[in-house]
Amino acid sequence: MLRTHTCGELRISDVGKEVTLTGWVAKIRDKGGMIWIDLRDRYGITQLILEEGKSDKNVVEAARNLGREFVVEAKGIIVERVAKNDKMPTGDIEIKVSDLNILNPAKLPPFLIEDETDGGEDLRMKYRYLDLRRNIVRKNLELRHRIAIEARKYLDSLNFLEVETPVLIKSTPEGARDFVVPSRVHAGEFYALPQSPQTFKQLLMVSGFDRYYQIVKCFRDEDLRADRQPEFTQIDCEMSFITQEDILNTFEGMIRHLFKTVKGIDLPPFPRMTYADAMKYYGNDKPDTRFEMKFVELTDVAKGKGFNVFDQAELIVGIAAKGCSEYTRKELDEITEFVKRPQIGSKGLVYVKLNQDGTIKSSVDKFYGEADLKVLAEKLNAQKGDLLLILSGDAKQTRSALSELRLEMGKRLGLRDKNTYSCHWVIDFPLLEFGEEEKRWFAMHHPFTSPKPEDIGLLESDLGKVRANAYDMVINGVEVGGGSIRIYNKDLQAKMFEILGFSAEEAKAQFGFLMDAFEYGAPPHGGIAFGFDRLCSLFGGVDSIRDFIAFPKNNAGRDVMIDSPSPISDAQLNELHIGVKAEDLKK
Amino acid sequence: MLRTHTCGELRISDVGKEVTLTGWVAKIRDKGGMIWIDLRDRYGITQLILEEGKSDKNVVEAARNLGREFVVEAKGIIVERVAKNDKMPTGDIEIKVSDLNILNPAKLPPFLIEDETDGGEDLRMKYRYLDLRRNIVRKNLELRHRIAIEARKYLDSLNFLEVETPVLIKSTPEGARDFVVPSRVHAGEFYALPQSPQTFKQLLMVSGFDRYYQIVKCFRDEDLRADRQPEFTQIDCEMSFITQEDILNTFEGMIRHLFKTVKGIDLPPFPRMTYADAMKYYGNDKPDTRFEMKFVELTDVAKGKGFNVFDQAELIVGIAAKGCSEYTRKELDEITEFVKRPQIGSKGLVYVKLNQDGTIKSSVDKFYGEADLKVLAEKLNAQKGDLLLILSGDAKQTRSALSELRLEMGKRLGLRDKNTYSCHWVIDFPLLEFGEEEKRWFAMHHPFTSPKPEDIGLLESDLGKVRANAYDMVINGVEVGGGSIRIYNKDLQAKMFEILGFSAEEAKAQFGFLMDAFEYGAPPHGGIAFGFDRLCSLFGGVDSIRDFIAFPKNNAGRDVMIDSPSPISDAQLNELHIGVKAEDLKK
Repeated sequence: MLRTHTCGELRISDVGKEVTLTGWVAKIRDKGGMIWIDLRDRYGITQLILEEGKSDKNVVEAARNLGREFVVEAKGIIVERVAKNDKMPTGDIEIKVSDLNILNPAKLPPFLIEDETDGGEDLRMKYRYLDLRRNIVRKNLELRHRIAIEARKYLDSLNFLEVETPVLIKSTPEGARDFVVPSRVHAGEFYALPQSPQTFKQLLMVSGFDRYYQIVKCFRDEDLRADRQPEFTQIDCEMSFITQEDILNTFEGMIRHLFKTVKGIDLPPFPRMTYADAMKYYGNDKPDTRFEMKFVELTDVAKGKGFNVFDQAELIVGIAAKGCSEYTRKELDEITEFVKRPQIGSKGLVYVKLNQDGTIKSSVDKFYGEADLKVLAEKLNAQKGDLLLILSGDAKQTRSALSELRLEMGKRLGLRDKNTYSCHWVIDFPLLEFGEEEKRWFAMHHPFTSPKPEDIGLLESDLGKVRANAYDMVINGVEVGGGSIRIYNKDLQAKMFEILGFSAEEAKAQFGFLMDAFEYGAPPHGGIAFGFDRLCSLFGGVDSIRDFIAFPKNNAGRDVMIDSPSPISDAQLNELHIGVKAEDLKK
Repeated sequence: MLRTHTCGELRISDVGKEVTLTGWVAKIRDKGGMIWIDLRDRYGITQLILEEGKSDKNVVEAARNLGREFVVEAKGIIVERVAKNDKMPTGDIEIKVSDLNILNPAKLPPFLIEDETDGGEDLRMKYRYLDLRRNIVRKNLELRHRIAIEARKYLDSLNFLEVETPVLIKSTPEGARDFVVPSRVHAGEFYALPQSPQTFKQLLMVSGFDRYYQIVKCFRDEDLRADRQPEFTQIDCEMSFITQEDILNTFEGMIRHLFKTVKGIDLPPFPRMTYADAMKYYGNDKPDTRFEMKFVELTDVAKGKGFNVFDQAELIVGIAAKGCSEYTRKELDEITEFVKRPQIGSKGLVYVKLNQDGTIKSSVDKFYGEADLKVLAEKLNAQKGDLLLILSGDAKQTRSALSELRLEMGKRLGLRDKNTYSCHWVIDFPLLEFGEEEKRWFAMHHPFTSPKPEDIGLLESDLGKVRANAYDMVINGVEVGGGSIRIYNKDLQAKMFEILGFSAEEAKAQFGFLMDAFEYGAPPHGGIAFGFDRLCSLFGGVDSIRDFIAFPKNNAGRDVMIDSPSPISDAQLNELHIGVKAEDLKK
């Protein structure tokens, strides 16, 4: 090695040793004949020191020629610092430099290489290799590494085998859009990149692999919303000869192991909530359970008082915000505006203040007397000092809007601390949902999810009521993983494809190999997949997954650093038997 | 779990326990009122037993309805076997079945699910999920898993960080053909799949990541030769502030760790051989060093005896095959035919038999007397009983042909035992090689490889003589890994691109981000990548890498199980702004 030690490891006990360090110049101070240099590498920062008149003249000269981010090799003796810095692990010592060698000079970086940088998102992405030098960004990727190591350790200890499934697979019409890869050898044919290794992991169960996992890249050519990436990573898992209970326990165990080993947090057991309850109490299938503030339906008690808005509503539902009775006009206006945003779409908000002095004030005093309001307060189990927030209208939209409002109130009340983790399972999802636009049923999870045995009869009578053996793991309002017990019977699988509108021929063309496989002895099986990028960001207490991906793409799916995607040569196109539609280029 | 135990874990000490096992019916014998069933899962085989008259009638009936590969759940009591089977870990016990439940029936598999199967390659690939049930195939993938686990453990212990680099990158003209992915959002633009994460790992070094690794899928759209796969896996590594010596030691350490932990083999230190010596003594840059049989050049001593073939040859070179002096006419004909194969391309073979009785017999007795032949024998350091094999002609072709013959003789002599491992490094590769067809220089390793500092002057005078700081790890004649110390100076990198025929514009368009990165403080760095599929096959003592890939593609790059690649819809093509060239479809 060009160095004897890293910049993070020298301590007071090393004083007197001659060492060679390498790294980047983070800072230089040159004052009163003394030069201090902060030398940085992945492991830390060590202070170098030179003194005019005492240090070698050429070395002082060399030091004065250094700039920020120069790469240097410095040799010297470790000495005890006079002014110690207890904020740095190496703060007790410094290196009296005897030799200094510039390994590579550096241009001035376009932004500060510090935790608080002056570089905007675009600039940092273009120079991502410099952005990655920042401690805060590198720590995220170190965390990601550590989580992957511990996930593998846990799964390996339970006999899970990591099996690599192919990346060049086959396009399927169900689900999101595929990225495709034209074949040079087979003109007019295409591979597709996997949206998940779903069918392969099920085949591995048919193969008797019993327990499979893979930390694996997946691809979706979706219109990118904020914080979606066209390529993303899953911890993908599958088990045989299990019930839903086994999956929930095994993977609750994995997440608890990760919190324990990576963050030192002992989590309590994860509560389970049915999809129906999640929707009823939180208006959301991934509720943030760091705080209560559950929905209470008020339809029965709030109607019939002459308030037209409520009287015509399908649903009236409210929450009680603890200690918010003293909200000002301005604050009430803010949250009213919040629920009226187009993406939330409520027409208005009804509030009831339960003042500390026992009086009650509402936005609907015209229609509701104190007694009426007290009934609402009791229903909502509210106390003096609370603020009741009530929405009404179409049931689905109203639940969804109140869910957003609940999250907003949780934020305002400081109930959504990033360092508090509330984990739970949502179970018993509907098997199917009806696409109003397409006028057909879609699999809520995917076409391989099994209905709950007790609901199989409903497949003939009431598709919307069929519940699935499907489950999501939700942490702090984020769905970090989801899965299901799979269908392993060919006839039931064929029935599912039929319900989803596949003709027998289409089903055979797309999934024939899977249905064939089911005829050769498929075991009962099920699994789960975790969004690894999201899981890492959650562990890091950061909202953006992009901060946990070394080289992310922007919201337009572009890598601005390498400038990709980009045109390819006509020779390449010809070899691949494809042409670009000229008319599309002009648009 | 549907089972209380696996089929591999019950022992004599468990006798008397009531257990439930699940698995596949591997074998049934029904004889004299007794029924024996071999129940198989990933972990082993356990024998089930039923007895007419003693076992429940319905259960006996159910057992008689079982077929091979049915998936069953069997409940019963563990009893000691009368006729023990010491070939099976569970051979001391069997399960007296009290209840038997068919979880899934199975059609008769198209081939035998046994180590020795009757299924041909094509059939097994079409039904790969059944092929994977075979013990021998599953063991390969378990080995692969174990090697990956141990590689990560080793690298993690040395502070290497696993960082995921992107799969959707940018097409570059150098190297093999890229697979490309049309962008829907950016009409006429394409991503490319990485042939390796080379530039990204170098950027991570510029970012100060110091030590990186990744077990990662890579892609090459090459014409497939036997045992090449369009997608393959690398253990990709890079380190900063190192010399070549550090890389060799670190990764020799990794391979020794893998042999030790996975195979229980303590390997001796790996010898190092220059490229020049490898070519001189083995005619090959990846010599199989499990046996000696080194080349000896005979050009000086063999010329001038009137044998035209030798007299006109650029090179005369031979090997001594120990103990082969009694080769028959037939055997000599076979090896002569061997070297005359078109892919080897020798015109003929000269042999000299050093008989046990002291006589010498050669195929060129007309030109060479006993004294002449003795000179050749001495040069080759051969003894009585040896067979000298000599080739001549164009130097390059002759070395290459003799290398093949050497390997053939090694095989015939049983010197290439798959359970013997001979590992070494080949170092000091040429930096460049001249493409006779293209009339330009190509990077032998890749354009980022650094010349040896002492050879940099030759970049101006004699490109063919410049040696690189590049190295390959060779085990048993297989290149399992290779890498180099990289260029980290922008000017030298620009010079390399110039030598490789890139215009300044092309270099900037393709690798501008890397050259820019070099201006912002790039550390000295280097790395290596191991072919993970190949490494696994070597550990497994099997030649084919396909046996170590769960779902491989065939030699035409096709996945015959899922039938991919395949046509996609016009709607998909339109969305991607591309069309298939109709004229190519007819071909």
